[in-house]
Amino acid sequence: MRIAEARTIVTCPGRNFVTLKLTTEDGTTGLGDATLNGRELSVAAYLSEHVCPMLIGRDAHAIEDTWRYLYNGAYWRRGPVTMTAIAAVDTALWDIKGKVASLPVYQLLGGRCRAGVTVYGHAHGETIDEMLDAVQGYVDRGYRAVRVQCGIPGLPSTYGVGRDALFYEPAEGGRAPREETWSTRRYLRAIPEAIAAARERFGPELELLHDVHHRLTPIEAAQLGRALEPHQLFWLEDPVPGELQASLRTVRRHTTTPIAIGEVLNSIWDCEQLIREQLIDFIRMSVVHSGGITHLRRVLHLAELHRVRSGCHGATDLSPVCLAAALHLDLAIPNFGLQEYMRHTPETDAVFPHAYRFADGLLHPGEVPGLGVELDEAAAERHPYLPALLPVARLTDGTMHDW
Amino acid sequence: MRIAEARTIVTCPGRNFVTLKLTTEDGTTGLGDATLNGRELSVAAYLSEHVCPMLIGRDAHAIEDTWRYLYNGAYWRRGPVTMTAIAAVDTALWDIKGKVASLPVYQLLGGRCRAGVTVYGHAHGETIDEMLDAVQGYVDRGYRAVRVQCGIPGLPSTYGVGRDALFYEPAEGGRAPREETWSTRRYLRAIPEAIAAARERFGPELELLHDVHHRLTPIEAAQLGRALEPHQLFWLEDPVPGELQASLRTVRRHTTTPIAIGEVLNSIWDCEQLIREQLIDFIRMSVVHSGGITHLRRVLHLAELHRVRSGCHGATDLSPVCLAAALHLDLAIPNFGLQEYMRHTPETDAVFPHAYRFADGLLHPGEVPGLGVELDEAAAERHPYLPALLPVARLTDGTMHDW
Amino acid sequence: MRIAEARTIVTCPGRNFVTLKLTTEDGTTGLGDATLNGRELSVAAYLSEHVCPMLIGRDAHAIEDTWRYLYNGAYWRRGPVTMTAIAAVDTALWDIKGKVASLPVYQLLGGRCRAGVTVYGHAHGETIDEMLDAVQGYVDRGYRAVRVQCGIPGLPSTYGVGRDALFYEPAEGGRAPREETWSTRRYLRAIPEAIAAARERFGPELELLHDVHHRLTPIEAAQLGRALEPHQLFWLEDPVPGELQASLRTVRRHTTTPIAIGEVLNSIWDCEQLIREQLIDFIRMSVVHSGGITHLRRVLHLAELHRVRSGCHGATDLSPVCLAAALHLDLAIPNFGLQEYMRHTPETDAVFPHAYRFADGLLHPGEVPGLGVELDEAAAERHPYLPALLPVARLTDGTMHDW
Amino acid sequence: MRIAEARTIVTCPGRNFVTLKLTTEDGTTGLGDATLNGRELSVAAYLSEHVCPMLIGRDAHAIEDTWRYLYNGAYWRRGPVTMTAIAAVDTALWDIKGKVASLPVYQLLGGRCRAGVTVYGHAHGETIDEMLDAVQGYVDRGYRAVRVQCGIPGLPSTYGVGRDALFYEPAEGGRAPREETWSTRRYLRAIPEAIAAARERFGPELELLHDVHHRLTPIEAAQLGRALEPHQLFWLEDPVPGELQASLRTVRRHTTTPIAIGEVLNSIWDCEQLIREQLIDFIRMSVVHSGGITHLRRVLHLAELHRVRSGCHGATDLSPVCLAAALHLDLAIPNFGLQEYMRHTPETDAVFPHAYRFADGLLHPGEVPGLGVELDEAAAERHPYLPALLPVARLTDGTMHDW
Repeated sequence: MRIAEARTIVTCPGRNFVTLKLTTEDGTTGLGDATLNGRELSVAAYLSEHVCPMLIGRDAHAIEDTWRYLYNGAYWRRGPVTMTAIAAVDTALWDIKGKVASLPVYQLLGGRCRAGVTVYGHAHGETIDEMLDAVQGYVDRGYRAVRVQCGIPGLPSTYGVGRDALFYEPAEGGRAPREETWSTRRYLRAIPEAIAAARERFGPELELLHDVHHRLTPIEAAQLGRALEPHQLFWLEDPVPGELQASLRTVRRHTTTPIAIGEVLNSIWDCEQLIREQLIDFIRMSVVHSGGITHLRRVLHLAELHRVRSGCHGATDLSPVCLAAALHLDLAIPNFGLQEYMRHTPETDAVFPHAYRFADGLLHPGEVPGLGVELDEAAAERHPYLPALLPVARLTDGTMHDW
Repeated sequence: MRIAEARTIVTCPGRNFVTLKLTTEDGTTGLGDATLNGRELSVAAYLSEHVCPMLIGRDAHAIEDTWRYLYNGAYWRRGPVTMTAIAAVDTALWDIKGKVASLPVYQLLGGRCRAGVTVYGHAHGETIDEMLDAVQGYVDRGYRAVRVQCGIPGLPSTYGVGRDALFYEPAEGGRAPREETWSTRRYLRAIPEAIAAARERFGPELELLHDVHHRLTPIEAAQLGRALEPHQLFWLEDPVPGELQASLRTVRRHTTTPIAIGEVLNSIWDCEQLIREQLIDFIRMSVVHSGGITHLRRVLHLAELHRVRSGCHGATDLSPVCLAAALHLDLAIPNFGLQEYMRHTPETDAVFPHAYRFADGLLHPGEVPGLGVELDEAAAERHPYLPALLPVARLTDGTMHDW
Repeated sequence: MRIAEARTIVTCPGRNFVTLKLTTEDGTTGLGDATLNGRELSVAAYLSEHVCPMLIGRDAHAIEDTWRYLYNGAYWRRGPVTMTAIAAVDTALWDIKGKVASLPVYQLLGGRCRAGVTVYGHAHGETIDEMLDAVQGYVDRGYRAVRVQCGIPGLPSTYGVGRDALFYEPAEGGRAPREETWSTRRYLRAIPEAIAAARERFGPELELLHDVHHRLTPIEAAQLGRALEPHQLFWLEDPVPGELQASLRTVRRHTTTPIAIGEVLNSIWDCEQLIREQLIDFIRMSVVHSGGITHLRRVLHLAELHRVRSGCHGATDLSPVCLAAALHLDLAIPNFGLQEYMRHTPETDAVFPHAYRFADGLLHPGEVPGLGVELDEAAAERHPYLPALLPVARLTDGTMHDW
Repeated sequence: MRIAEARTIVTCPGRNFVTLKLTTEDGTTGLGDATLNGRELSVAAYLSEHVCPMLIGRDAHAIEDTWRYLYNGAYWRRGPVTMTAIAAVDTALWDIKGKVASLPVYQLLGGRCRAGVTVYGHAHGETIDEMLDAVQGYVDRGYRAVRVQCGIPGLPSTYGVGRDALFYEPAEGGRAPREETWSTRRYLRAIPEAIAAARERFGPELELLHDVHHRLTPIEAAQLGRALEPHQLFWLEDPVPGELQASLRTVRRHTTTPIAIGEVLNSIWDCEQLIREQLIDFIRMSVVHSGGITHLRRVLHLAELHRVRSGCHGATDLSPVCLAAALHLDLAIPNFGLQEYMRHTPETDAVFPHAYRFADGLLHPGEVPGLGVELDEAAAERHPYLPALLPVARLTDGTMHDW
């Protein structure tokens, strides 16, 4: 079963998505998400100009061989652009294989390990009270786990705190990133109080999470982790930048607050030490930025060996195709932890009709063969690409910081 | 799709095989090898008395969940009997899933990574000349890799040296094991000469392997490995007993002869250090003794991460069902190394009609949905179980040694 | 002195026990426990079909040689079934040797190191109050150490909490395991309060223990260990699954609560790192699941080297034969810690009349030659085997968890 | 001094080059190489669509701040595409700064540490004799170091062996990569003889190098390194794929042949362990694929700390802009080792007129302010982009291998 056509579709139903569509000789189609927030057209060019032509005529069943053909064939390997492009091909081929087998992808991955995929939502507010109200909104919708982010007094804006309660999107239109101001001192002072308030209001059952977003030094992260211990977080996310995996040793030595890392990582090499030394408790890599189902599954199996659980990234900068792929994996691995779930806008859902659905705090990938997501190309065309970028952050003295 | 029937079949078409047969409500069947040479009825009882009853009514698609149900549910985990029983269920479920998907199992595992599976045969002789003749026989049949074992002067019998050129079987009928005599000194003196002779006669292209069969101390293995370096072995197998994984550090420090270990190992815990520290070059675990396709795949992926290749055990104490499962895995993993292939007797092939075939030094699993092996139950019944055991070895002073 | 007869007896005086009975030419008998809870008939077959025939005619005195004959001769080594079968032979041979020497076994093991064997009992209750009452019951009986387990609010059932105060048995009749529900969050919230209550009520002298039963991740175990520090546990048992021994590093870094592990381990290879790195304080392996007195003694000697003490498993799934063997070992080793003691039912004691007795918080193996336990075969026959299984546990989303 | 214009120019004077050109308000221009062989248009899009717009108006002096603005601002960091795009900006800004200061860039980097930059050339031949002739050609041109690559008997083509003696280019035009066949066995047999011949012919003074090009397993690399020890290589390059840095431990344990790695690495995180553990002797990263002068300088400083020397990649897939940047760095660091130098074609030199020149085995960056390379845009336009790709390699059984 040969690949007959490979195309890249860029659409912006509220935010930009890049999608790879493969079609086999017999007309079976497969979709793969190729969205890299703020650098979309680099991946689109990687695929359209370099990868798509070499896919034509290849066996659509040979997923593993194609993965290595693209990975080894790139010569310069790894990194977000490369691994996102490879992920798109890999995901589309699993979609095709599911359709050929007349089975949802999770069945090919070993079958169902649980009833559904427990997700967490993003609650945020400029003030603690607004944040608590937002949490209440998620609780009312049936969520069992909520990420809480709160405005930091004295800072004009704060990561994770947006205008709309449900559809928060940090990327902004324009050709240069918005520059935010950051103060670690203010943050460290403010955030324990906010999380304490959430724990007090919602009691011990609701799982609470918090995202530091890479902004602390190791010893600051150790301080924060210890300060938050009484409030029993489900996880503390990205406490420090992750490139130096050994940094987490410093954090880990001082606190038992569980640690989650991974949304910016792209390969098993980026997290091997984190996992092997049990420096984290949850690995948060996504299908789209980590080489697809084939590669992320290896990461998740390595995590299983070392008692690390999954916590797949699931922000809206991943298209419904990636979310579906994550759900199939989530359902099929033994060491599932939690799945992030930011809701796509109705416009996005209209471009990407999908079988997955939310009910009672869980997402369900559905029983449609393949991934269960399609692309309405006519709808996609009505939303042409619009440049947008994630912000950057500076300290009050102007020093460029991690956003 | 529920499991409706689970039965264990024991048959002895020349040697004993234990097979698990699962049947779903709609009549789809799956086979899993459950043969543990010399302890067959312990696994058969594990399955028939304890596991089969709990499989009835379970979802045949839920391979991963069933694996964990059996592994966690055993409470006492790991070890050859337990992991062989779990492997039988796992293999049978993959066979069923392939049939349901109308795809050979290798397609479910990611598709084909190579044209076929390169195998090695077992050449042996009481003398070096007989051994060289046997190698020639394999070369004439198209083999590109041959394991060479030679009688040790002064020892009445030697591991790996049997009566029949093609169908060597170390297990012998009876209720107590045959006791062989071993002399490390004689062995270390004799074997480099034999391997040098093979290399000289067959030139640099033929891949030569040798199996020490666990009989050396670490420093003796280091000596042997270094002595064999000029003859460029493809691998030196089981140089020391494998329970103490750190033993291989001593071997490894002294020689670049590639090392293969694994046929007696049963779980990822038994080889994690071997792989992580690159103490071996080939991991030789088998589907049947390692918890099935689901678990062995994790081992092979871990090996891939650490640049270790596969070398799956494939002696005749594994039934054609296990051999087929190995071939599907071999075809689908990127880090395939070599596959052992001892030919089953015609009687065994008649009991287990199979789609795999040998051609030009390669085995091919075939394109039949599932594993491509069936069990002729009427033929199986004509070969009732006969007790047989592997030998034990003693030093010349009577000390029990590793066989 | 040759072995003339080897038989396996399966009996169910309230719960299943498998016993190996060896008889020498001169009529001396020895008993070995071979019970593997929930997989009994696999061990029984291992012995009856494969091991017993090869024992006939062997020297009953050659314990060490026979151990290696069975261990090396199995070729596939380790694991619960294999090591339980070997343990049965080993234990029976020590029993015979004691009778031949007219000495209790502990004298052959080096003689008495202490007056008696301090034991701990199992106190449990659905509520904290019930649990405290149960502790009081043990205190009243003279126990100096008590394991405390308490119902978890919101969970329909809890590990370690049974109906009967004295004779708690988690295995249940039937052909499929009962499925329990587990919530780590609820457990972590409930258990510190329960243990605090026990400490408060019974003061600082009574040794308190708690069994997590493998259900936490490393960081959760670290949290619990730290939370329990004020209550001065004697040990915290099985905080995490034990296959990945390095997991204990994470636990150990954060808490000084002593750790005990071992009841599911089967060989020295399963605990070597735990002991060498002092990741535990007590090694809890049992004679029956660890290759017998001969092998467990080596484990305990390694533990002594590294300042780790014994804490032998002693639940009722071990027969009185195994308990007696543990007591002889406990008496003879310098690094004894504590012995678990769940009382067998009167029916079991009637099938296994024994010399050991409980007095003032201590068990005494007695001075009868050998182990001091016999098997009333007529009584045993009145209790035929009944299938029974330990439960499995699932998370609330259906994920299979460690029971 | 603000950046007023940022443009990306793609040209193919024999092979493809991507160049970033920055112009300040006052008309000062700076060039940065952005060529990623075979994935050129992905980097071009990264720059044109995403990076160039955000550069306009920024301070051209703020090199460090801009580096972090692009690195942190990308959110998904590292990898060849991202680091190549950042390198282009960084290189162009150093070019501008040199021009503003009226100093060659090496003066800004700390000044000259040596008279010139010793380089090595690429000698190759289908046969050993042809290879030796090619070495002679380099010796005749004054080279003091030569990389030697030789055809492998039995393989239709070999890495590093091209048609033209001086202008070897592995990338080939077309939309799918050429598939080559690889045999490690043949390679390991052939190459020591070739290197021995070169050493014999050219005596002990000429520095000889050899590039394995990532194709060996760790133990094979150890074998080769040991086999080559008598021939005193200056370095053995890329003996194994570099993602798993710990792999080099295995190589390193067995041989004292110096090891060089780095041309496919893109950040300090990719080589930190290699350098910290002294697993290599030369770090071969290039300015263009490693985030520019700013980031590569940090890598080289870390290398200095650990007694590792530089060996910058300098194949023709780097444009003269990158080569010039490398030369300035080479001149200014204390731990310079050797610089690769493949000559560009006259067409390329015409598009990129440059100040650097070769004399007597050394390259000299020249004394022109900035990098000393300009871009003739009219000439560039005459050579439009032509798709071309590096080959891939398969084993004889079809397994995808490292090329």
